[in-house]
Amino acid sequence: MIFDLRQHSSSDASKPPTPGGQTRQRILAVALKISAREGLAALTIGRLAKEVGMSKSGLFEHFQSKQALELATLEAAREVFATAVLVPAQGGRGGIERLWNLSDLWLKHIEARIFSGAYFFAGAFFEYADRPGPTAGAVTRIAREWSDTLRKAVQGAQGAGEIDPDADAEQIAWELNGKLLGAHAAYLLGHDRSFRATRAALLRQLTGLATQKIPQSAFDSVAAWKKYVLDKR
Amino acid sequence: MIFDLRQHSSSDASKPPTPGGQTRQRILAVALKISAREGLAALTIGRLAKEVGMSKSGLFEHFQSKQALELATLEAAREVFATAVLVPAQGGRGGIERLWNLSDLWLKHIEARIFSGAYFFAGAFFEYADRPGPTAGAVTRIAREWSDTLRKAVQGAQGAGEIDPDADAEQIAWELNGKLLGAHAAYLLGHDRSFRATRAALLRQLTGLATQKIPQSAFDSVAAWKKYVLDKR
Repeated sequence: MIFDLRQHSSSDASKPPTPGGQTRQRILAVALKISAREGLAALTIGRLAKEVGMSKSGLFEHFQSKQALELATLEAAREVFATAVLVPAQGGRGGIERLWNLSDLWLKHIEARIFSGAYFFAGAFFEYADRPGPTAGAVTRIAREWSDTLRKAVQGAQGAGEIDPDADAEQIAWELNGKLLGAHAAYLLGHDRSFRATRAALLRQLTGLATQKIPQSAFDSVAAWKKYVLDKR
Repeated sequence: MIFDLRQHSSSDASKPPTPGGQTRQRILAVALKISAREGLAALTIGRLAKEVGMSKSGLFEHFQSKQALELATLEAAREVFATAVLVPAQGGRGGIERLWNLSDLWLKHIEARIFSGAYFFAGAFFEYADRPGPTAGAVTRIAREWSDTLRKAVQGAQGAGEIDPDADAEQIAWELNGKLLGAHAAYLLGHDRSFRATRAALLRQLTGLATQKIPQSAFDSVAAWKKYVLDKR
């Protein structure tokens, strides 16, 4: 990890933010907004300096190159994504519940328009994954972190006896990720109902994977699933 | 449609290509290569003139703006995609066969690296779909053409009595598209086996959708499916 936004994060109670850290945070917030809407290619030092309202040389004190700026922006996006999806999904009992949480929270982060555009975690990945260089490396590392998290959640559910231990955890993770990308694509084409349909499809997939340890009726609807999870607590 | 590459296409036997048309074709081939690898944002008149080996003013005779260049490049990409996927998928008997053909050919166009990068039909879509402007409009129109083609193939299979007429054709199309995007993403993360796994998953999905008109054994494997299709001819 080249830039660690958490060093400067105001949520890190042990270290109060320095003035330099606060400026850096403010710059990155604008950088995130520009690139979420228009892609990393639109993120130039000149454009960013103008939108933040500081001189180019002032900006250079924080980011010595476009490359450094891109990497820091990607890390900031990863941080936002982790806060919205990865961290809260770790709550609960684990097992199939975690797999549902990850998928559900991923859909929510699109629905809630946490980023001001469709770019991160889909556009940037398909744009950069196939290229050489540090930006492509960072994009791929972030995508792999997500893909690995899904796979580990499948394996966790297998370990908890809630999914057939012989099932192909890696392939299930790709399929789940595909379902989410498909929902996102449908939403971008104007089909708002795709999220509801995808949650129903996710539950159908989980029914097919689940062992007898979980009653099939738990997968009947999102409401049934939520009730099942609450009753387990 | 603002630029129609087919006007200049050598495959249009009724109109022999003009020298200007040939130059335009050559420029677009380079434009396609740059943007497939690095995204549309990397496609500037200056960069393109250099790589094609002509002056900027010479290039301006063919494309009066970056906007016009972007639209023509997208249309050229659409043309390549149509030739590789949309047109050949229309062969055969229709029904579920067309749905398989579309999905299979889509995967093949990634496997064969028909574009020299992962950008078109995934990156460009997730990068642009959410923005205003003509480029976003063209990207969305092309993505919708693909999504509509999938939906119509489902409806065609319903019309042929091969898929339950009550099934949600639109949602099946989103799910199929998601499966393809998920396979593409897994491939970009280095999982070459994702295509084989996805074809098996596609057949499983088609088994679940098919009426009794098609024997379930036809969906046992890609080989079984190919044999079923051949025997039907």
